[in-house]
Amino acid sequence: MISFTHDVPPQRVVFAVGAILRTPEEAERLNFSHALIVATPGSGARLGQKVVDLLGARAAGLHAQAVLHVPKAIAVVGLEAARAASADGLVAVGGGAAIGLAKAIARDTGLAILAVPTTYSGSEATPIFGLTDGERKITGRDAKVLPRTIIYDPDLTLGLPAAVSAASGLNAIAHCVEAFWADGRTPVTLALASEAMRRFAKNLQAVVANGTDASARAECLIAAWLAGTVLAAGTGLHHKLAHVLGGLGLPHAETHAIILPHVMRFNLAAAPAAKARLGEALGSGDPADAIAAMLHQFPIPQRLRDVGFDPGRIDFVAAEIAAAKITSPRPASADDVRALLAAAY
Amino acid sequence: MISFTHDVPPQRVVFAVGAILRTPEEAERLNFSHALIVATPGSGARLGQKVVDLLGARAAGLHAQAVLHVPKAIAVVGLEAARAASADGLVAVGGGAAIGLAKAIARDTGLAILAVPTTYSGSEATPIFGLTDGERKITGRDAKVLPRTIIYDPDLTLGLPAAVSAASGLNAIAHCVEAFWADGRTPVTLALASEAMRRFAKNLQAVVANGTDASARAECLIAAWLAGTVLAAGTGLHHKLAHVLGGLGLPHAETHAIILPHVMRFNLAAAPAAKARLGEALGSGDPADAIAAMLHQFPIPQRLRDVGFDPGRIDFVAAEIAAAKITSPRPASADDVRALLAAAY
Repeated sequence: MISFTHDVPPQRVVFAVGAILRTPEEAERLNFSHALIVATPGSGARLGQKVVDLLGARAAGLHAQAVLHVPKAIAVVGLEAARAASADGLVAVGGGAAIGLAKAIARDTGLAILAVPTTYSGSEATPIFGLTDGERKITGRDAKVLPRTIIYDPDLTLGLPAAVSAASGLNAIAHCVEAFWADGRTPVTLALASEAMRRFAKNLQAVVANGTDASARAECLIAAWLAGTVLAAGTGLHHKLAHVLGGLGLPHAETHAIILPHVMRFNLAAAPAAKARLGEALGSGDPADAIAAMLHQFPIPQRLRDVGFDPGRIDFVAAEIAAAKITSPRPASADDVRALLAAAY
Repeated sequence: MISFTHDVPPQRVVFAVGAILRTPEEAERLNFSHALIVATPGSGARLGQKVVDLLGARAAGLHAQAVLHVPKAIAVVGLEAARAASADGLVAVGGGAAIGLAKAIARDTGLAILAVPTTYSGSEATPIFGLTDGERKITGRDAKVLPRTIIYDPDLTLGLPAAVSAASGLNAIAHCVEAFWADGRTPVTLALASEAMRRFAKNLQAVVANGTDASARAECLIAAWLAGTVLAAGTGLHHKLAHVLGGLGLPHAETHAIILPHVMRFNLAAAPAAKARLGEALGSGDPADAIAAMLHQFPIPQRLRDVGFDPGRIDFVAAEIAAAKITSPRPASADDVRALLAAAY
């Protein structure tokens, strides 16, 4: 018999074309009087500067030093910047790198985050943080790091290259797929995962084909948000595999995209309810094939060999996954993982 | 282009067979040390007493005087009881009447509510309160009255008679239908309304046919919860009509059930996106017909004449609705309403 606990911290989401102009009023609503704007260097910094200008006296400055995977040294420098500026809030402008650095600062300071995402990472919708220390990636969960407010302005995603849209879209789809068998799933996470899958199924191909399709962009950004929210219900084999492969230096979103159809083939055989939901959302009797076909159309790496995976590490990865003792929707033995990796290679 | 603001206060939901036994730990989590238990007389009081016994020293007493539609005098007596008991929390046990009285008390005192629902009213999932003063029904919205925690124990719904399950199930379905065209709709409310519709479409008939079908009961209780949450996005012609008819003394859930297919026929002609979503959830190309067929099978009143509607009041109702100037998904003129009521009569 079904049982669950639903207990999700609140998050305010403002979604509109041009919503970046509402950053000042949303910062005010969070009582920010001196907020540090966090971004990556380069084009991220230009957008960050725009937000600094919009915030005027409410901005404590721009800290455009975010780096993917939040290296520990970068987190330390970010924390010092927030303290030096006496920041009373954080505005993260950009993708997973900028939001990840803001989370690292928030974890130590308790400062609230206002997120202005520009990609489909979905990080803005989760209380999950990550830090890398040399080759080790540590992830954890802390309610403090969940952004209080998200401002989605779909115009900010118009510049995302096709390959980035494709890989990060499939990465977000992977969040939905695992939501259907995650231990912490609830009727709400199932509903939101279905909704996100439907929107991606209808719009991701259009966005990859034509990055300036504003309506499809808006739909994919909504889907990415919903996909981020369901991560809180937990993950399984897919995310564990991607995590271990990421630790070997493989690129994050691309690796997610490559292994997803293989994980789906393996797990859906043991997850009829997940298969039915995915089939409905994708309009396909074979959801793993539908996702494989989507990947195949996209201008991104198709196989683990294309992203530099060393097949000599198959045994290592298989042992790591077997040690994780995943059970939902089915156990994955070292042999199962070896077969899966060989197919993806 | 789509735009929306999502800003929903948090609510903890514990769902399990036997979850009523978790009332003490959930009351403790809310720091209740002296909670007033609110229920209706009769069988509601028996369940209320069970909760008093479970809470032991954390219970300030049982106030089993709730009445449907929360007459003002009843609210005043409830408020006095909470003050006399120095209650530091409210536990509402029962359906819309018990939860409605707890909301009336919470509105004046700010006390937190722990709700243990036994019907499909969905009131536990909304910040909407109602009071009746003579023939006038006042409804309003106040974040204070939203229960902080809901305990759903599907076993508590096993005793719901078929007619009550049918009428309150269709009432909850009406919340979902209007969610598809409500002005305040967001991707989240659309997703939850779709999810609730799917669960009702698969399980409401089973529950009406066999009240002891525990699995179908659980599914309908989940659907009723989700249907309640989407009410916060707003309502339209259907709820306004039901409200005006309710003011004439017609029974609440039964009236909702009777007029729903008629409102759907009228509005879906102008709401293709809503029609597509409903069609998918119901597995029908004609959602209004599908709901009419469901109503037809159920052992409840089928026409407004069956619930004592005076056709002499058609003009009054039509004028009230026209004055409300509803626009989404289409305007409803006095003539439109007259035709709709004539068909439902």
